[in-house]
Amino acid sequence: MTQKTGVDFYSVIRERQSIRGYDPSVAITEEELKELLREATLAPSSSNLQPWRFVVVTDPAVKAELLPIANNQKQVVDAAATIILLGDTEAYKRADEIYDLSVEAGMPKEARDAYVPRMKEYYRTMSPETARSVALIDGGLVAMQLMLAAKARGYDTVPMGGFSHEKLIERFQIPAHLIPVMLISIGKAAAGSGNPTARLPIEEITSWNKLEQ
Amino acid sequence: MTQKTGVDFYSVIRERQSIRGYDPSVAITEEELKELLREATLAPSSSNLQPWRFVVVTDPAVKAELLPIANNQKQVVDAAATIILLGDTEAYKRADEIYDLSVEAGMPKEARDAYVPRMKEYYRTMSPETARSVALIDGGLVAMQLMLAAKARGYDTVPMGGFSHEKLIERFQIPAHLIPVMLISIGKAAAGSGNPTARLPIEEITSWNKLEQ
Repeated sequence: MTQKTGVDFYSVIRERQSIRGYDPSVAITEEELKELLREATLAPSSSNLQPWRFVVVTDPAVKAELLPIANNQKQVVDAAATIILLGDTEAYKRADEIYDLSVEAGMPKEARDAYVPRMKEYYRTMSPETARSVALIDGGLVAMQLMLAAKARGYDTVPMGGFSHEKLIERFQIPAHLIPVMLISIGKAAAGSGNPTARLPIEEITSWNKLEQ
Repeated sequence: MTQKTGVDFYSVIRERQSIRGYDPSVAITEEELKELLREATLAPSSSNLQPWRFVVVTDPAVKAELLPIANNQKQVVDAAATIILLGDTEAYKRADEIYDLSVEAGMPKEARDAYVPRMKEYYRTMSPETARSVALIDGGLVAMQLMLAAKARGYDTVPMGGFSHEKLIERFQIPAHLIPVMLISIGKAAAGSGNPTARLPIEEITSWNKLEQ
């Protein structure tokens, strides 16, 4: 990974906002999109199984097909790329590959050997609802880090939940173990894009040591 | 919000890792935990409904009760705080409050008035499964930003999916519209904590314009 530095974390979290109007003349190279995805996937996941899968749509013809699937949200064609984020409910099948890499990275082999077999069995016998929940939560984790990593590189993003899951699955022949989590467009904001938004006061959504009813 | 600056984004994403061994002598003030949560909740959410709710456990007696619920993961008692992250499947009920705040922040009143009624109707009639998915995905978004904001302040975290949902719901009297998303412990790593991990090569989890089968 390129060892980038020198971008203020607090500027990134304050300045990131969802952008729906994009400059259609801005492209992002495949190499930079890969770097961004590498940064995003430093996010944690359940048992480090990394159940996220990406289909990056940059081809204008594919963008045009994605447009009606995404309820005609224009960012799908105007942004440099739209990432289809999928959650893999069978991510445990790559556990050996992942933990071999972790051992290469310095994890003690005994730790891997003790952990991986029972972890795989846990996921293999997990209820479909729980497997789905894990894939959605971990999808949220990687999506957030992706949007921040994009902002750190000067790009804008918007996460989209409003799309036809059925049509997306059909068009991209998505197998049943991969579930659509969200679409994320990425590019550079057109002039005048972005609406002011606000957040609930933290006191109204937080309680201490017990749940305020 | 305190206007903090001067923390390198790339250091934060590279140095954050899940930490399970904490220095039990480290406390974090309620005020700093609130600042952290404010930073976390700058995350985006579906229609900006912010369906995240937090119960922050800092009281040693409550930590001790949380320990068996969290499968005896010791970080629950050793970390300065453990945040119970809940997803609100009825977050649309606060849409008026949220969008009033957005108008105060500069959103045109006409935009609010045109959008909010149909948005609320959309969420009110949403299937329970979809409402649950939204709360889980948005929970993932805010959890990631929380863990990064903590790292930016020099704290370590660990997200936990391994806990008894049933016992948590019972102990904290969590109503049905709030669903447990995850637990997040926060504090400072004890010496020697943290295992090397690795990520799958981006080429193996990404495809371009079509899904590689």
